Amino acid sequence: MRDVAKAAGVSVATVSHVVNDKPGARIGDDARRRVQDAVLELGYRPNALAKTLSQGGSRFIGLVADAIATTPFAGQIIHGAQDEAWKHGYVLLVANTEGDPVVEKDVIAMMLEHQVHGILYSTWYHREIVVPEILQQTDTVLVDCFSADGALPAVVPDERQGGRTATEQLLAAGHRRIAFINTTTPSPARSDRLAGYRDALEAAGVEFDTRLVLEAEPQQEGGYAAAEAIVASGVTAVFCHNDRVAMGLYDGLRERGVRIPADIAVIGFDNQDVIAAHLRPPLSTVALPHYELGAAGVRVLLGIDPAGEGPTLVACPPVLRASIG
Amino acid sequence: MRDVAKAAGVSVATVSHVVNDKPGARIGDDARRRVQDAVLELGYRPNALAKTLSQGGSRFIGLVADAIATTPFAGQIIHGAQDEAWKHGYVLLVANTEGDPVVEKDVIAMMLEHQVHGILYSTWYHREIVVPEILQQTDTVLVDCFSADGALPAVVPDERQGGRTATEQLLAAGHRRIAFINTTTPSPARSDRLAGYRDALEAAGVEFDTRLVLEAEPQQEGGYAAAEAIVASGVTAVFCHNDRVAMGLYDGLRERGVRIPADIAVIGFDNQDVIAAHLRPPLSTVALPHYELGAAGVRVLLGIDPAGEGPTLVACPPVLRASIG
Repeated sequence: MRDVAKAAGVSVATVSHVVNDKPGARIGDDARRRVQDAVLELGYRPNALAKTLSQGGSRFIGLVADAIATTPFAGQIIHGAQDEAWKHGYVLLVANTEGDPVVEKDVIAMMLEHQVHGILYSTWYHREIVVPEILQQTDTVLVDCFSADGALPAVVPDERQGGRTATEQLLAAGHRRIAFINTTTPSPARSDRLAGYRDALEAAGVEFDTRLVLEAEPQQEGGYAAAEAIVASGVTAVFCHNDRVAMGLYDGLRERGVRIPADIAVIGFDNQDVIAAHLRPPLSTVALPHYELGAAGVRVLLGIDPAGEGPTLVACPPVLRASIG
Repeated sequence: MRDVAKAAGVSVATVSHVVNDKPGARIGDDARRRVQDAVLELGYRPNALAKTLSQGGSRFIGLVADAIATTPFAGQIIHGAQDEAWKHGYVLLVANTEGDPVVEKDVIAMMLEHQVHGILYSTWYHREIVVPEILQQTDTVLVDCFSADGALPAVVPDERQGGRTATEQLLAAGHRRIAFINTTTPSPARSDRLAGYRDALEAAGVEFDTRLVLEAEPQQEGGYAAAEAIVASGVTAVFCHNDRVAMGLYDGLRERGVRIPADIAVIGFDNQDVIAAHLRPPLSTVALPHYELGAAGVRVLLGIDPAGEGPTLVACPPVLRASIG
């Protein structure tokens, strides 16, 4: 900083004011320009740590993720959170726990030591969690999860709207007998996508038939195993709990000579990278908005978006490909 | 810190010495114990930033990733790097560029401002890169990539051994006419997996037949399109450039009534989560060692592992499931 001051012919204090963009400091345009030129010329890099200490409170936001190694979902949350954090001059400190509670406590303690502005605590699928006690020591926003007592602000996907949207795509293509292969795992996705499916049927004047709601493990094997029952049910369309189930169902239907979408239309959920766009035929689906969950989490943490009464719901948009016809 | 000193009946300097575990400071066991008790009781949390400044040089390692939102590969590199960094008392500062050179320069500048100990610069698939100039300002290890001039240490998968291993699995099952569906994308994976395929054939006394090497886009669509040529070639086994190609080939073979593995055995490459274990039949493959690449990168950066002459090669182990028979 001394070198910059010397090159610009100003005091070190002036350099500091210009570099830190201190409000209220009266510095002439000329001096400011000379400092900026000297900074560029000398490649001066302000020490972010020293800056943090002198200003009190860091420009870090912590992001705790539980599964960045197994699905791209956490990566998409990180991507959205990072873009939004940068927009507001913050840097993400990302830590991966792979669901290990000991690692989790350690990484959060690390973030607190670095005096993060706050923490985004995220899960790779939408679920209720017990908030780790250590999170009481800083501002926290839950991303893709929520606590039963609603004590912390949360940002989650709108599962019910997503379920309604998926079913509406099938109804719009003229289908009336529509099966729903739901997951066996108790979760908001399970109850709310079902509620959305019923909403859409009701709005279209189609009677809800409980026999058309099947259950399957939420992966390929589950969808494959459901194929027999789907064929027997006489439906012309299927809403699958997720894209992995749809992928397994494709295999099961194919083995039975059933064509997609000519004989049975299919829609999934997730818009999972590497799968949805690359099935035969490419799968129509509803996207889980992980990028937007990350971005919205940052906005709530920084007070840009208000934290509402209940969780903030982020819409799940349809992604149409070739499996509905 | 003053509160801790008061509760323990020692000086602030003594607290600082105990908390920072300063070598050479002579402090009695009794005083040390009293400080530790007071720290626990008062919930004192040393300020990591102040500590960094007083000790010079941070405990941060930067990790630049180019695609954490689209595949789980970058997440696995992060997972391995984080585990290894923690083991040695370092914290990862992760930044995602999604391949944008402007973002890349910004995130690296941010890391330099935070005085990182060094940077791991990683790519989601193994390739040659031009090293961003700004990386000259700190120690850097390339992970899953390398520069032509070899100026920086690099850690990459052993593609040739991987290609040999994949082919050996098919040879061991008795196959002699083995096709290789290679990628159309020029890359170390393309040239070295082919070299490994030839190594294995030669070692087994099987003549290399250039007509059995096909090329395809490295995703499902490419594998599907190759099915006709595979059937026409009369091979009994296929080594696919990656799992996505194998997934597409499955569809193409199935349409032609060809059974896997009864009629044609298949092996992939990548061991891609969400796909490999969930195809019908589950896919035998060779794993890309992303976790180990991240961990080895940290070890090279910290000087625990030596940086060799050329890139450090990490082995690609076989993962056997049901597609070879």
